[in-house]
Amino acid sequence: MSDTPPEPHNWGRWGDDDQIGAANLLTPDVVKAGAGAVARGRVLSLSLPIKGSTSSNAPCTVPHLRGRPLPQHFMSIDGGDYLAGAKPPAGLSIADDALIVSPHGTTTHMDALCHMWNGSRLYNGHDSARIRSYGALRCGIEQLPGIATRGVFLDVARHRGRDILDPADRITAADLEAMCAAAGVTIGAGDAVVLRTGWTKQFYRSADTYWGGEPGLATDGALWLAERDVVAVAADNSAICGLNAQGGADEDLDGDIHMIFLWRHGIYLMEMLWLEELAEAAPATFQFVVAPLKIVGGTGSPINPLAIL
Amino acid sequence: MSDTPPEPHNWGRWGDDDQIGAANLLTPDVVKAGAGAVARGRVLSLSLPIKGSTSSNAPCTVPHLRGRPLPQHFMSIDGGDYLAGAKPPAGLSIADDALIVSPHGTTTHMDALCHMWNGSRLYNGHDSARIRSYGALRCGIEQLPGIATRGVFLDVARHRGRDILDPADRITAADLEAMCAAAGVTIGAGDAVVLRTGWTKQFYRSADTYWGGEPGLATDGALWLAERDVVAVAADNSAICGLNAQGGADEDLDGDIHMIFLWRHGIYLMEMLWLEELAEAAPATFQFVVAPLKIVGGTGSPINPLAIL
Amino acid sequence: MSDTPPEPHNWGRWGDDDQIGAANLLTPDVVKAGAGAVARGRVLSLSLPIKGSTSSNAPCTVPHLRGRPLPQHFMSIDGGDYLAGAKPPAGLSIADDALIVSPHGTTTHMDALCHMWNGSRLYNGHDSARIRSYGALRCGIEQLPGIATRGVFLDVARHRGRDILDPADRITAADLEAMCAAAGVTIGAGDAVVLRTGWTKQFYRSADTYWGGEPGLATDGALWLAERDVVAVAADNSAICGLNAQGGADEDLDGDIHMIFLWRHGIYLMEMLWLEELAEAAPATFQFVVAPLKIVGGTGSPINPLAIL
Amino acid sequence: MSDTPPEPHNWGRWGDDDQIGAANLLTPDVVKAGAGAVARGRVLSLSLPIKGSTSSNAPCTVPHLRGRPLPQHFMSIDGGDYLAGAKPPAGLSIADDALIVSPHGTTTHMDALCHMWNGSRLYNGHDSARIRSYGALRCGIEQLPGIATRGVFLDVARHRGRDILDPADRITAADLEAMCAAAGVTIGAGDAVVLRTGWTKQFYRSADTYWGGEPGLATDGALWLAERDVVAVAADNSAICGLNAQGGADEDLDGDIHMIFLWRHGIYLMEMLWLEELAEAAPATFQFVVAPLKIVGGTGSPINPLAIL
Repeated sequence: MSDTPPEPHNWGRWGDDDQIGAANLLTPDVVKAGAGAVARGRVLSLSLPIKGSTSSNAPCTVPHLRGRPLPQHFMSIDGGDYLAGAKPPAGLSIADDALIVSPHGTTTHMDALCHMWNGSRLYNGHDSARIRSYGALRCGIEQLPGIATRGVFLDVARHRGRDILDPADRITAADLEAMCAAAGVTIGAGDAVVLRTGWTKQFYRSADTYWGGEPGLATDGALWLAERDVVAVAADNSAICGLNAQGGADEDLDGDIHMIFLWRHGIYLMEMLWLEELAEAAPATFQFVVAPLKIVGGTGSPINPLAIL
Repeated sequence: MSDTPPEPHNWGRWGDDDQIGAANLLTPDVVKAGAGAVARGRVLSLSLPIKGSTSSNAPCTVPHLRGRPLPQHFMSIDGGDYLAGAKPPAGLSIADDALIVSPHGTTTHMDALCHMWNGSRLYNGHDSARIRSYGALRCGIEQLPGIATRGVFLDVARHRGRDILDPADRITAADLEAMCAAAGVTIGAGDAVVLRTGWTKQFYRSADTYWGGEPGLATDGALWLAERDVVAVAADNSAICGLNAQGGADEDLDGDIHMIFLWRHGIYLMEMLWLEELAEAAPATFQFVVAPLKIVGGTGSPINPLAIL
Repeated sequence: MSDTPPEPHNWGRWGDDDQIGAANLLTPDVVKAGAGAVARGRVLSLSLPIKGSTSSNAPCTVPHLRGRPLPQHFMSIDGGDYLAGAKPPAGLSIADDALIVSPHGTTTHMDALCHMWNGSRLYNGHDSARIRSYGALRCGIEQLPGIATRGVFLDVARHRGRDILDPADRITAADLEAMCAAAGVTIGAGDAVVLRTGWTKQFYRSADTYWGGEPGLATDGALWLAERDVVAVAADNSAICGLNAQGGADEDLDGDIHMIFLWRHGIYLMEMLWLEELAEAAPATFQFVVAPLKIVGGTGSPINPLAIL
Repeated sequence: MSDTPPEPHNWGRWGDDDQIGAANLLTPDVVKAGAGAVARGRVLSLSLPIKGSTSSNAPCTVPHLRGRPLPQHFMSIDGGDYLAGAKPPAGLSIADDALIVSPHGTTTHMDALCHMWNGSRLYNGHDSARIRSYGALRCGIEQLPGIATRGVFLDVARHRGRDILDPADRITAADLEAMCAAAGVTIGAGDAVVLRTGWTKQFYRSADTYWGGEPGLATDGALWLAERDVVAVAADNSAICGLNAQGGADEDLDGDIHMIFLWRHGIYLMEMLWLEELAEAAPATFQFVVAPLKIVGGTGSPINPLAIL
């Protein structure tokens, strides 16, 4: 990395205090265009299941990055307790529970703009010293009320006639351009772009293969999307970009997909989506709605993004 | 409770295996009508903030029921760590975190259909023995992909010319009817109804008052809504129904609001919403979108419901 | 399993209400004999480290059973925060933290008498229905104040002239007898027996080998110890007994080590100890002190057993 | 605070790298003297119960500081599950659980030497920048294998003829001297001193009174103990020192008890002990054994200290 980093593209564009980045693009017209993309009246969840247990391997059976702390889910009162003699107050049986979740790498999630940065500056020049043990005081996930916009579905695997892309496959600007042309879609400001690699399915075939590299977006593809002012990019792989066999990205800091999207442009990323039903429905566009939990100072949130076709 | 419970209204209506209840009402027409209710192109979050910390009282400053385990939020790597000497790999600084949350009573959340029942039968007759320590194998929150429909906003506090309802206030069928008439809205199948009592604001004025009873929906109001086949009822109080000074409901089992909605009709409940911005915008209808986390076997989920005006 | 289980040996021996089993053997004389075994005035911890992190693989580097939820450790305020600008109140900087731990299979721990049972009866005939989501109302770990007694160290690996036992190795009654004879030690009522297989070291050589079976105590060895009325058995493997390549025990229910010790005799088990420094010091006997956390209804506890030589 | 802090007494005494402070005082003779103090052969737990639940107020019924995150305890498989139909593998029923605990202020615990400091230096001059989100890399609780030594019991409440001390009561050097003289005990290097105020019982009478100030050790009492080179000080209040009605200490930084013990002298502190059985047994001295969990980088640990009389 040079001492003088490339000027981040979108810093200051929406004011020095801005902490929501590309969400500023969600103008009334964009939101209305999103609602206008609903054609069939069908709602699809784009989320993986969150499985938890301390006494079974259930969480391990859902796609995740190796070594990450998997979700834990506990029932604090359940049906078995009543069978065992617990007395429901006034006949009213209640089931209650708790969830422990570290969203990055373990389930479908959104990255906050504070999730990654370079040097001492977060997105828009905010001081990284504001991210402390009690949360990110700048650019936390709670800054974003939610996203409701037009979703553009780019099924890269289908475009290449493949069921699942190879780990070495990279999605280039040319790919994106060709897919948009074929679909007759022009990506515009405030759109959310959903990329399908098929990679999630790979986990169910072989977890070891899943962990041995990932197909994903190339740097020039990322720049192509950033230039079009998308509000968010979502994919069914775990890092939007491709990963090598060691689980790392091959791009340098300038070409790093997270740096380009989150840090330079304030564009939101969603990873580890489940896109198989969407692939079957195969809409070119739809209403995309996602609402991260309002975790104050959160670096991201588990999400259940909806495609409303 | 009598030995022969009143025949639950909606059991079997959508088949013996049904686990999603009123979500069956989300037909393509209903979903499209929801999208059609977007007029201004504005997105509002209806969620309280989730604040966590083990070293401050931050979580206590957000509305919650007394005695419940409040959310905990931890940063596993943050900006302070890099200042203290942690080395970002290849210049890429990352912030990461974890959340512990028991949604009921601690934050804006949705109840799953398995959250409450009577005797040994869950909604639609499913066996309560299927709710075990590893989660609810029937009627868990993961059964519901999400809700996207028309929202009907009934600002009861404003209707009564009040800033905040009194703890003893109950919302009756007559209230609902009058408000709908005044707004020129007919509640129909699949609508999500959002009730505002103003009660959330009470917490910020006096937590002790907040805990000393709550205004809420009366039994006849609940039946009135259930008859209209709504998909969900949301409110800014903590239990939809009213609560007495001891924090309990005064209705018996037959009149209990949770039993009527969740158990007999399979209608989803959302509690502890933040409705003050919605009250200012004051739409009669809007698109209501909510997507619970896909927690397998969950009794509910923290949510960030969106009103898309 | 037959319908008529073998009569458990120690049930009723200390009364029908007894929930502490072999801890009844800790008579004043036994406790005093424990203190009397201190010769050198040296204290050794027999515990593995508990490493936690959501942002690194640190917990994975400590011996554990595959698929178990590893400990998580979070700092809620730390030195980095003050460097980043947090103000210590009145100049007093504080570091604070939280721990999430599922002790079985993840760290050095003790099993409560409620940890395992057969049919509907816990140790001493207590009803298994008393173990519910809010904890074990019978035979929980909080029943045991602690153990302070004479420890007898049996270094099986050294006895066989081996650094680490093979996964197929089983420790028989004959082994135990021979080792005691060689050491001139007679195991008596209330003694705590510590068995070393060397297996913990195997994890650091190869985790895959560690997970591919374990050396351990044979059924006849367990019966031999139970007959001598030991208060507890501790080992550096993960299940006291041996494990096959699939991670299971080959003994049937009658010969199962956990059933013999916990369920029939009320003898406490401690697993995953770190015994390498003890092996170097090589005392025949010592004072053994262990104090489980007083977790009400706990099925066990993480522990840091001390050998006071 | 002045710019030139008072020279901490014990820094450098055991070498520049020392991270265990007064534990260096646990010489063979001291450890043996501890074992020699066992007279009756009786073991007492000095720990409060750890109660957890997300569905009841159980944790609130145990003494704790207001606003702290109380322990949570979850069963991941329990007796109710088997009654509800879960199949025990090969007839072997297992109960398993998880614990979430933030030890400071919520249960009986030990402070690590890294728990408090002034400026940028921990005990013995270690850099506070080494305490990061992944734990304290210096002076963490795992540095201490355990403490086994002579315990000296000073029942201040009884000494003053009181059941429970008043919140305004402070324990002075003169008190300590008088009690030692009365008991015929000379406190020496490596002793662990256990102070009883009776305050824990106050919680069960009135939690509000419990939270309205606490009796505790005065600055001159702390200096008196530090001069005698004790290894640890334990008490049944929550902060060793007294607290005012606002829950703070009235001493300035120079007189602060935590600074004197932990920071300047490397003397370990244990808080929130349960001393009522010990008060009944009323030994002047005993063997004191405590073994914190080996939490790498921990700021403390929940503990179950044992008094072996």
